[in-house]
Amino acid sequence: MEKTVYLDNNATTQVDPKVVEAMTPYFCEYYGNPSSMHDFGGKVGQKIKEARETVKEFMGASLASEIVFTASGSESANMAIRGVLEANKKQKHIITTKIEHPCVLNLYKTLEKEGYRVTWLSVDNDGSLDPQELEDSICDETALVSIMYANNETGIIFPVEKLAELVKRKNPKTKVFVDAVQAAGKIKLNVKDTQIDLMGISGHKIHAPKGIGALYIKKGTIVMPLIVGGHQERGKRAGTENVPYIIGLAKACELAQNALKDESTRVKALRDKLEKGIIERIPNARLNAAVENRVPNTTNIGFQYIEGELILLHMSDAGICASSGSACTSGSLEPSHVLRSMGIPFTALHGSIRFSLSRFTTEDEIDYVLETLPQIIKRLNQFSPFQKELKALGA
Amino acid sequence: MEKTVYLDNNATTQVDPKVVEAMTPYFCEYYGNPSSMHDFGGKVGQKIKEARETVKEFMGASLASEIVFTASGSESANMAIRGVLEANKKQKHIITTKIEHPCVLNLYKTLEKEGYRVTWLSVDNDGSLDPQELEDSICDETALVSIMYANNETGIIFPVEKLAELVKRKNPKTKVFVDAVQAAGKIKLNVKDTQIDLMGISGHKIHAPKGIGALYIKKGTIVMPLIVGGHQERGKRAGTENVPYIIGLAKACELAQNALKDESTRVKALRDKLEKGIIERIPNARLNAAVENRVPNTTNIGFQYIEGELILLHMSDAGICASSGSACTSGSLEPSHVLRSMGIPFTALHGSIRFSLSRFTTEDEIDYVLETLPQIIKRLNQFSPFQKELKALGA
Repeated sequence: MEKTVYLDNNATTQVDPKVVEAMTPYFCEYYGNPSSMHDFGGKVGQKIKEARETVKEFMGASLASEIVFTASGSESANMAIRGVLEANKKQKHIITTKIEHPCVLNLYKTLEKEGYRVTWLSVDNDGSLDPQELEDSICDETALVSIMYANNETGIIFPVEKLAELVKRKNPKTKVFVDAVQAAGKIKLNVKDTQIDLMGISGHKIHAPKGIGALYIKKGTIVMPLIVGGHQERGKRAGTENVPYIIGLAKACELAQNALKDESTRVKALRDKLEKGIIERIPNARLNAAVENRVPNTTNIGFQYIEGELILLHMSDAGICASSGSACTSGSLEPSHVLRSMGIPFTALHGSIRFSLSRFTTEDEIDYVLETLPQIIKRLNQFSPFQKELKALGA
Repeated sequence: MEKTVYLDNNATTQVDPKVVEAMTPYFCEYYGNPSSMHDFGGKVGQKIKEARETVKEFMGASLASEIVFTASGSESANMAIRGVLEANKKQKHIITTKIEHPCVLNLYKTLEKEGYRVTWLSVDNDGSLDPQELEDSICDETALVSIMYANNETGIIFPVEKLAELVKRKNPKTKVFVDAVQAAGKIKLNVKDTQIDLMGISGHKIHAPKGIGALYIKKGTIVMPLIVGGHQERGKRAGTENVPYIIGLAKACELAQNALKDESTRVKALRDKLEKGIIERIPNARLNAAVENRVPNTTNIGFQYIEGELILLHMSDAGICASSGSACTSGSLEPSHVLRSMGIPFTALHGSIRFSLSRFTTEDEIDYVLETLPQIIKRLNQFSPFQKELKALGA
């Protein structure tokens, strides 16, 4: 394969070879069905129990029984949201934010069509929520408040623990769901000391494979299952357990837990070097979320007066992987709903690129980007119809 | 590991090493998100396209776009059933059989509680359905008819193609869902030449890993998604694609297609040898589904006057894996709902064991079972409270 500098880790990550190693015996050797009566299956059931314990520790839950394995972050979110609403059909009001991930956003749009009233909280120029707006929105009718932990495009971290307290003070019956897909592995999770009822994570954002996720359901929270059938996952999610990936997710959680310090020091330093280097070298570059409180691996930079898709294609030719918006919406050519909500100026909106690093990112790779990207932007600037504006910026 | 003779392939199968080989590059090497704009992800999208083509061929569908990848047979069934009913909220009548797999059975029980009227078709002593009963049950209100292709416990094959025709003749608007989890890889699927609207399969029953399935949705059939969010699977199922397992499922389908002849000759011969050998050697053994029209790998044998769980535990100690009922209900100690529906006499019901072979089963393994099992049953007979009855059988 040609050179690949992979700076698209918020879209998906490389599976850690140690995760593959942990999973491998469960394909051809320990392949029993954990629900089987025979020892051959029973032994596998024991391994799942241990894996659940590890994921519990990673999410900072109180009990392993609060963890349900799912097939994706999207399934975790759908299960949490639908499950809570199905269990409580009287309350028909939901509060969420304008900057949720598409999997959550589109589900709420569907629920609106089904007759739910949805309040969409706005964000300011810094991408922050206004707690007062949240407080004012909560009423007796509010079944669910759903706020992401960290935004996938900007990396901005929301104070979900404090917001959950605020929700419960105003209406103790309202359930709080936190989509922690982009926070997991980047900042420490500790859900047991919060008032959060449900929290979802996805394996493939933390170097486990695509196709595994987990949902934390606080003890006592009633969630109707999305997939009905067998008794697996204590009746909460039917289907033979994905044994290899469950083992793999546990290994990935263990590795991510151990790498948290690297994430907040080395990875953060590389991200800061990339960010600073781009802003210094490229006159029409502009940092889209210039706040301290971001996950350490993410930066979002607007290249004013040029098209993001063009930048991505040229970077791709140079072996650099990054993205505009989320992978789930790419190809649509619509500018990011997150950046629009933040009021990012039109001039930068279409040319905004997310760079997301991981513990596998090296300094050499960052240097390569800092060498290559200015040339790409310079060339693209020449084709921009906004020559006067670019000149004013010194580009 | 100690000796393992695995005759529980209807519960789950060993992943074929060739499947593991096909999947492996997609963990650490080609790990891009297929939805990404960069080539690194785009190349992966191309591989998914090819995999979908292979699964299409395996199921005998007309178009690759009729195949949706899911995370399990249970998800396929839930998606098909919920999806069809959500798309047509007026018709509130469902027809199914008493001998469906628990994942389907329990969903219909849930739907009954939600206000649907469910007709449960019965089976006769041979495990066969009465087409007249089906025909009489169909009415204007019938939204869905759901019949399994082959039963997981007895292996009996149902004439789903003819039954689908019968349904459509009586009410062309009624949708037909076929759970083909236990038929796939054992008999040839060819859904395009039938009137079946939806058909589900599961990877881990055909030597792919646990955690992948597929659903055939005939072109033009409206199915509301179970998991809402991103645009994956043409908007029918959100969540980043489980790339390795999708590649693995395609490989497993290719291998299963090639092994169909082996299944209907060599595997069938081994199954017949096992079945005949047990009946000959063990006086209180009794074949539970003595019909020709069964999948070639399955036999279900009742050992009269002894407890199935005891047999399983003793077999497990001797390294032989088999099961009573489905893995999804094991541990419940309730006698099988399938055998009860067939009117299997009480004396054999509790002592019924399913043996299910695969293309990895060898003659040596069958010989070992035929050597070991008679001793186990002989010992257990001594502890049975039904000594007089056992003596009458010559045991």
